[in-house]
Amino acid sequence: MRATIMYGAGDVRIEQVPDSIIKRPTDALVRVTGACICGSDLWPYASRTPDDAPFRVGHEFLGIVEDTGTEVTTVKKGDLVVAAFAISDGTCQFCREGLQTSCTNPEAAFWDMVPDEGCQAEAVRVPLADGTLVKLPVAADSALMPSLLTLADVLGTGHHAAVIAGVNQRTRVTVIGDGAVGLLAVLAARRLGAEQIILMGRHQARTDLGREFGATNVVTARGEEGIAAVRDLSGGYGTHVVIEAVGTMPAYQQAVGVVRPGGVVSRVGVPQFDDGPIGWDSLFAPNVRLAGGPAPVRAYIEELMPDILDGTIAPGKVFDVQTGLAGVADGYRDMADRKALKVLIRP
Amino acid sequence: MRATIMYGAGDVRIEQVPDSIIKRPTDALVRVTGACICGSDLWPYASRTPDDAPFRVGHEFLGIVEDTGTEVTTVKKGDLVVAAFAISDGTCQFCREGLQTSCTNPEAAFWDMVPDEGCQAEAVRVPLADGTLVKLPVAADSALMPSLLTLADVLGTGHHAAVIAGVNQRTRVTVIGDGAVGLLAVLAARRLGAEQIILMGRHQARTDLGREFGATNVVTARGEEGIAAVRDLSGGYGTHVVIEAVGTMPAYQQAVGVVRPGGVVSRVGVPQFDDGPIGWDSLFAPNVRLAGGPAPVRAYIEELMPDILDGTIAPGKVFDVQTGLAGVADGYRDMADRKALKVLIRP
Repeated sequence: MRATIMYGAGDVRIEQVPDSIIKRPTDALVRVTGACICGSDLWPYASRTPDDAPFRVGHEFLGIVEDTGTEVTTVKKGDLVVAAFAISDGTCQFCREGLQTSCTNPEAAFWDMVPDEGCQAEAVRVPLADGTLVKLPVAADSALMPSLLTLADVLGTGHHAAVIAGVNQRTRVTVIGDGAVGLLAVLAARRLGAEQIILMGRHQARTDLGREFGATNVVTARGEEGIAAVRDLSGGYGTHVVIEAVGTMPAYQQAVGVVRPGGVVSRVGVPQFDDGPIGWDSLFAPNVRLAGGPAPVRAYIEELMPDILDGTIAPGKVFDVQTGLAGVADGYRDMADRKALKVLIRP
Repeated sequence: MRATIMYGAGDVRIEQVPDSIIKRPTDALVRVTGACICGSDLWPYASRTPDDAPFRVGHEFLGIVEDTGTEVTTVKKGDLVVAAFAISDGTCQFCREGLQTSCTNPEAAFWDMVPDEGCQAEAVRVPLADGTLVKLPVAADSALMPSLLTLADVLGTGHHAAVIAGVNQRTRVTVIGDGAVGLLAVLAARRLGAEQIILMGRHQARTDLGREFGATNVVTARGEEGIAAVRDLSGGYGTHVVIEAVGTMPAYQQAVGVVRPGGVVSRVGVPQFDDGPIGWDSLFAPNVRLAGGPAPVRAYIEELMPDILDGTIAPGKVFDVQTGLAGVADGYRDMADRKALKVLIRP
């Protein structure tokens, strides 16, 4: 079968690999009908060296179950399923609490940690299928497929950012970053009723989609100028919630600059740094809270899916490019160059 | 009148200063009947240089109102009052939300920022008296005085740490630090019903008081050994809440080491650093939240006072030394040397 392999920086190739097969009784084998390139895939795409070992890439997909191990009970051959980007067993103490990203099962993992598997491929072996997969009540050729595919990561991630920050009808929110996660954080904040949603981004096609998703204001300025603009828009003191959907230090600093005293900086961009400002001036004096992490999207699928099925939300609009596997390398390049917002792959 | 003045490191003196007087219509003049030395006073006591300008010190007190400005309505001459350590007007948007430490009034301040005032003195001018002072329903010679004095800072600070971390009956809590704030965080967590309270400290007289306040376990080890001990005591993954009541980097690192995935590190020790670990490994991957700051103790006085008045809690037990102003310099030295837990001053 064909699969996507990442070599050094900027070097993504489609290659023939051994067919994925069931290895454990809790596995499912899924033929991928839709996958994506994620903003987080762009970090290794930008930073790897030729010395790094090549790896199979991709952590967002939906597809049709081709086979299941003997212990799998919740999905069966022929089902259309979506996978959470974190493999989890659904039964450990953290899974039961809705923090599937901290599943204690030895097989629990993020996809990039699973040897010889990756979702930007024709098929994939899914460990812990009962915990990881959710059956979708539509046909594989449904027009809703792109939106349902966002349940694998980016919609649930934007939702996580809003939920852990406590967004409600009395909340003013700033979203930093106009990538797919930032835009879907706008959608999620709107869905939870946020009074004001200020989107910080400078790519007009994206901020236009952000307005469509519910942003009440767009701020294109960055740094001190951007901070001043958000404060002006939010009554002088910043917003109760700031969703940081980038992961860089300038984005974090911007978040600290626009959060209201007593508010929350909610991070869902994977941080590209270890240490950052958390002392008296940044977080402590104003009692600002810092939240966030990889989203346990599995916990949110049942809540979010009905809104997709009935057309209340259309998160699939973040896909502005569709391609087969042959176009994946171009897709990476276009996303890295910010020509494409998010690439949908139909293997 | 006499007042405490801090010069360089280790140099605290009682000196004659001009009598405090009413300066603004919103002021009250209070004769101090009880004040304290705070653990946070020990940071400048340890670090100041001879080049730093001397300043009047002290931010915790209760006393009797001697005079009030023309606009003061909530306290009057002869009232016994306690002051919150943050001066606030009680009417701005943040005060109304219970975040008086972020009061926007131009006179709002921490005491060390008020020129020529300080609470380790015979009397003090209290700006924004209506917001800052609360009348106490006992006589000045009440045996409850030490406990009521903790409403000015350390009890409210321990309570803040527990409240913002969401402590409830299903919560396991670690408290790092056996100073007065740490011990009162134990008391506060117990009062909120915490299932387990692990106190990390190595000063037996203090940890014994911690057990009396509600600690279910005491861990004397530090660093990796201490982290392993807490994890063993808490089912292997650490506790939902970690209250960090010290403020140093080792204490922060210990907090990150013992917090359960999805849990909260709640800081009330003033951080002695600007940057710290907040990246993938420390906070992000396990979805750990970071909360804390200077406690808006004014918001908690009405809630906590009844428990003192009816004897449910006795936070005044943190005072193990009492002295007049003449003993203040010794009190600083003994607290810095950890011979005294917390010094009560009767000017």
